[in-house]
Amino acid sequence: MGGDFAPQVTVEGAHAALAHLSEQTTLVLFGDRAALAAADNYGLLDDPRVEVVHTTEVIAMGDHPVKAFAQKNDSSIAVGFRHLCGGEIAGFASAGSTGAMMVGCMQAVGQIEGVIRPAIATAFQTARGGEVLLLDVGLNADCKPEVLAQYGIFGSIYARTTLGIENPRVALLNIGEEAEKGNLLTKATYPLMAECGATGAYNFVGNVEGKHLLTGEVADVVVCDGFSGNTLLKTVEGFYHILQGKGVHVPFLEGLNYENVGGTPVLGINSTVIIGHGCSSALAITNMIRLTERAARTDMVSQFKRAFKH
Amino acid sequence: MGGDFAPQVTVEGAHAALAHLSEQTTLVLFGDRAALAAADNYGLLDDPRVEVVHTTEVIAMGDHPVKAFAQKNDSSIAVGFRHLCGGEIAGFASAGSTGAMMVGCMQAVGQIEGVIRPAIATAFQTARGGEVLLLDVGLNADCKPEVLAQYGIFGSIYARTTLGIENPRVALLNIGEEAEKGNLLTKATYPLMAECGATGAYNFVGNVEGKHLLTGEVADVVVCDGFSGNTLLKTVEGFYHILQGKGVHVPFLEGLNYENVGGTPVLGINSTVIIGHGCSSALAITNMIRLTERAARTDMVSQFKRAFKH
Repeated sequence: MGGDFAPQVTVEGAHAALAHLSEQTTLVLFGDRAALAAADNYGLLDDPRVEVVHTTEVIAMGDHPVKAFAQKNDSSIAVGFRHLCGGEIAGFASAGSTGAMMVGCMQAVGQIEGVIRPAIATAFQTARGGEVLLLDVGLNADCKPEVLAQYGIFGSIYARTTLGIENPRVALLNIGEEAEKGNLLTKATYPLMAECGATGAYNFVGNVEGKHLLTGEVADVVVCDGFSGNTLLKTVEGFYHILQGKGVHVPFLEGLNYENVGGTPVLGINSTVIIGHGCSSALAITNMIRLTERAARTDMVSQFKRAFKH
Repeated sequence: MGGDFAPQVTVEGAHAALAHLSEQTTLVLFGDRAALAAADNYGLLDDPRVEVVHTTEVIAMGDHPVKAFAQKNDSSIAVGFRHLCGGEIAGFASAGSTGAMMVGCMQAVGQIEGVIRPAIATAFQTARGGEVLLLDVGLNADCKPEVLAQYGIFGSIYARTTLGIENPRVALLNIGEEAEKGNLLTKATYPLMAECGATGAYNFVGNVEGKHLLTGEVADVVVCDGFSGNTLLKTVEGFYHILQGKGVHVPFLEGLNYENVGGTPVLGINSTVIIGHGCSSALAITNMIRLTERAARTDMVSQFKRAFKH
């Protein structure tokens, strides 16, 4: 039950999520039971689908993620990962320390054998209403061509299983549409992704430029290094905030609001983990929980394992 | 008088520009005199400030830029560069072949001694009304740290002389605000730019993230490699087009319309050259000419030369 505005906002968001979750889903809350109860003006804890696992420690913003994850054994993040690894929960999400969440992903959950580097992804709503998945959005600032080619597999599986996109069109973010365009990285990546397309690993549709990212017309999955992806993500967020500030309200823009996105899936690891924004509102918490259920109910992780089994 | 819609639109745009140009400015048109006259429904060619230099060849879209520039000696681009290098004109702009324009910049005009790599830049209107300059936006997809550090000088001089920004704040595009954040390139670039800040080469204000690019609150000049810059530029353009298509019209967005930007200055070379969009409308041609006058009337090039004189 982390996040900058926990537990109040987290409890509120969790309660609102219940209305959307399957009757078969159990929502397990990790946090201080008394604090949760004090914040519960909604009857959240009385719902038969809700369980509380009491934790006594908190990983703070200033804590060193690796140390905190190891030492604060009874924090909600540490306990949550133990439950995830033990199979007691099918997916885990938190708006708490992003650093500690990543430590949990890499150390407790671990990456899938054959994966060179896990990635984090963001889904944007496109101008025509569907979603486009961008990855990596910041986990690996420097990527090798082989890493980007694998991200095509990540994105394709996530888009198919969790976003519900059939035969997702996978593209490489580039500065020209022609195969020979690009920087050293994208020029070296293109033939590897084309090979993945040829062998049927995924539906590679070639290069896509920034101007086509949000149209939804060219690609469902856009692969790039974490520097480019993070920059793009933040530019779009900045654009969104400027237009909000100027009183522009159109549905397309609302689809770019992080509160509606739900969070950032960590892909290429042995379980389903979603990282929420630290400053999550109740709406963002609700959508984070809904996204986690959506991803955990698919066979995403086993599809990942099959894809990387050689 | 190049551009996809030349000469009709080019003549129209040039005529509209006249009203904004100084009485001391001469507008020299390079192109087929008969074609210009046939397109001139505005009395452009009768204006005492207008001169025509007759040219007989055209560099076409499909032409190889290097070959075309060398062989089509009497094209408007080749003749224009000869006039520029001969000092007969103070600045040169075209919406014709971007490739041939770049060949002219590199081969005919040449880069300033001490400059490692020239750059192309784009000015965006910011949310608070001023401008922010982004460079490089596509000339050098792969940059070394030393190149980016020099781009701070380029941007600072252009912002001061042509955009009229006093003591421009120069920032490095990055994926975090802290000095130690980034990919290999930006981590290596930061100390070099900090050194430029310390020695007074420019006013370095540190890292800036994509979300702050268009706010105008953090930086006046944002330096990045050409891959990142081109991607950002095209993402912003794409965003603009989507919102236009959805009927959103606010002044901030209009400031991002390429027609109002005027064109792309080529920086780090021995003269003033502005490259227009191939698909320039009359309004874009007008603003390209106005920008060229604005840049050519400053001492930008001599400031560049002084900055790189060691």
